Amino acid sequence: MGHVGKQSIVFENPPIIAWAHSTVGPKEAAGPLGQYFDVKLEDELLGQTTWEKGESEMIRQNIQHLLNRSQKAPQDIQYILAGDLENQISATNIGLKSYGIPFFGLYGACSTMGESMSLASILVASGFANCVMAGASSHYCTAERQFRTPMEYGGQRPLTQQWTVTGCGHVIITNKGNGPRINSITTGKIVDFDIKDVANMGAAMAPAAVDTILTHLTDTGQSPSDYDAIITGDLGQCGLDIAKDLAKQLGVDLASILVDCGVMMFNDEEQDTHAGASGCGCSASIFTGYWYKQLMNRKVRKILMVPTGALMSVCSAQQGESIAGIAHAVSISVE
Amino acid sequence: MGHVGKQSIVFENPPIIAWAHSTVGPKEAAGPLGQYFDVKLEDELLGQTTWEKGESEMIRQNIQHLLNRSQKAPQDIQYILAGDLENQISATNIGLKSYGIPFFGLYGACSTMGESMSLASILVASGFANCVMAGASSHYCTAERQFRTPMEYGGQRPLTQQWTVTGCGHVIITNKGNGPRINSITTGKIVDFDIKDVANMGAAMAPAAVDTILTHLTDTGQSPSDYDAIITGDLGQCGLDIAKDLAKQLGVDLASILVDCGVMMFNDEEQDTHAGASGCGCSASIFTGYWYKQLMNRKVRKILMVPTGALMSVCSAQQGESIAGIAHAVSISVE
Repeated sequence: MGHVGKQSIVFENPPIIAWAHSTVGPKEAAGPLGQYFDVKLEDELLGQTTWEKGESEMIRQNIQHLLNRSQKAPQDIQYILAGDLENQISATNIGLKSYGIPFFGLYGACSTMGESMSLASILVASGFANCVMAGASSHYCTAERQFRTPMEYGGQRPLTQQWTVTGCGHVIITNKGNGPRINSITTGKIVDFDIKDVANMGAAMAPAAVDTILTHLTDTGQSPSDYDAIITGDLGQCGLDIAKDLAKQLGVDLASILVDCGVMMFNDEEQDTHAGASGCGCSASIFTGYWYKQLMNRKVRKILMVPTGALMSVCSAQQGESIAGIAHAVSISVE
Repeated sequence: MGHVGKQSIVFENPPIIAWAHSTVGPKEAAGPLGQYFDVKLEDELLGQTTWEKGESEMIRQNIQHLLNRSQKAPQDIQYILAGDLENQISATNIGLKSYGIPFFGLYGACSTMGESMSLASILVASGFANCVMAGASSHYCTAERQFRTPMEYGGQRPLTQQWTVTGCGHVIITNKGNGPRINSITTGKIVDFDIKDVANMGAAMAPAAVDTILTHLTDTGQSPSDYDAIITGDLGQCGLDIAKDLAKQLGVDLASILVDCGVMMFNDEEQDTHAGASGCGCSASIFTGYWYKQLMNRKVRKILMVPTGALMSVCSAQQGESIAGIAHAVSISVE
């Protein structure tokens, strides 16, 4: 119990994910998991004048839905830990503004949902807080024009490229109540395999995902079969294949247990999303929309959520820096 | 003890700031506090080909100095919590890469040193970790060209504008050993006074600083005179004046006790820095370089560090969003 192995914490009093809420955009709603999401937006602008204002409004609304669902007021939430992909996490900063909740801003690229749930569970398990919100968000249009090309440009996308999810997910983590429990966390370190192709983030993140998963299993004395599913954030099809190969090379067979939110989100052939989905909102919306409900309905009993992030900026890519990865694992179960 | 009042935690077993290390650029070294900083760079590029690579190298070197000083290896550090002002906190991501330390990436604008020390102290006080690093960084040249204008442009700066510090500071927080103790923390909420002038960040941050300081005093049952100094991050001269006025209007006289790292860093008249210094590296380097030593030498015995952040991006400013502020307070004392 407590800190175990190299980089894990096992909780003696596992915090509870008491409530969860997800919002996705129209393209995500049209994908294979469409029925599971709580709110399906018809308008990616949410009635705002810019996509950035739209993303902030999406976050604001998702938090309000979660407060309504939990019958809590903003002042009942002791902390919120959250982030997004916009420069200076503006979507989150602006989306949270009206709530007045003490706020720790995070940047973990697309690993942010893992990071936010990890720190929230530390706050609750320590006894320093009893009700904490965690979340993450991304938006296709804000990410595309910030990281890649103007939306109007319509550039051709390589087949290794992924499609940033418009969506977000937030959870309320408490010390009492009903819901899946966070048994342990494994905090990722930065792993750099010298990938420089900004159109192949899956390759950049796969080594970090494998590093965190294998470290988690060793630290906590578990094997892959202790889990019903090990779920990476947004490796996409290319990254998922690499992760399985890499784990196998390292002597751990994850082939039948490893699934990826980036692969689950879209029907890539029909929806023209190439290697799959990406973005902070990918694992955030699929965890809160799909996996959380699978746990509540006892369709699965124990999962390892491993949101994965590619650490790069437009400037770092232009300056020839490699894209390192990071992944944070959160072990969640129901009885 | 534990969570008290609206947004504070008082630690029963106060974590210890066992080691600290600061690095600053040449302009900061030439300021009134020059003698206190541990490393004074002669070259803001640190031998690199770009300022961004220079900022990453500054972070890498400062962490190495801190490891040397503490006689620790990277694997002795269980977590690092850190951030900077570059888009996607690239300076930190790249600067940390070689160490392999489990990493929580933070974005709190210039409040990041307060955020990182707060979360690090939670990790240690909870017993989940016993040795955690926290830090923050900024760089004049990377910030100026990212947030404002190309360096070569040489635009005229308004008198309310501040000068981003080239500098960083890191600390090692432990559960045993010698050093100042973190007695309590107060986590800020986002405070928005509808300031839209990107050349007057002090005005945008002052209301958040006052909100956090007054909440801290109420939550912990203290008065300003319980502190030898209450130290904001980078309000600068304009923001400091506003903060004092605002606190007075709210019935708390902070005039004699409130000082600001943004005012302390430069000799504004001689160094042409207008309203003072700013940037994550401002409070990070002045805490680790100056205040930490004042505590160790018993020149002060109890301080409230309140790093302050202005939550904006180029995009949010261009879209007419107001600049909200946030401030995180960390109460530190020696016996």
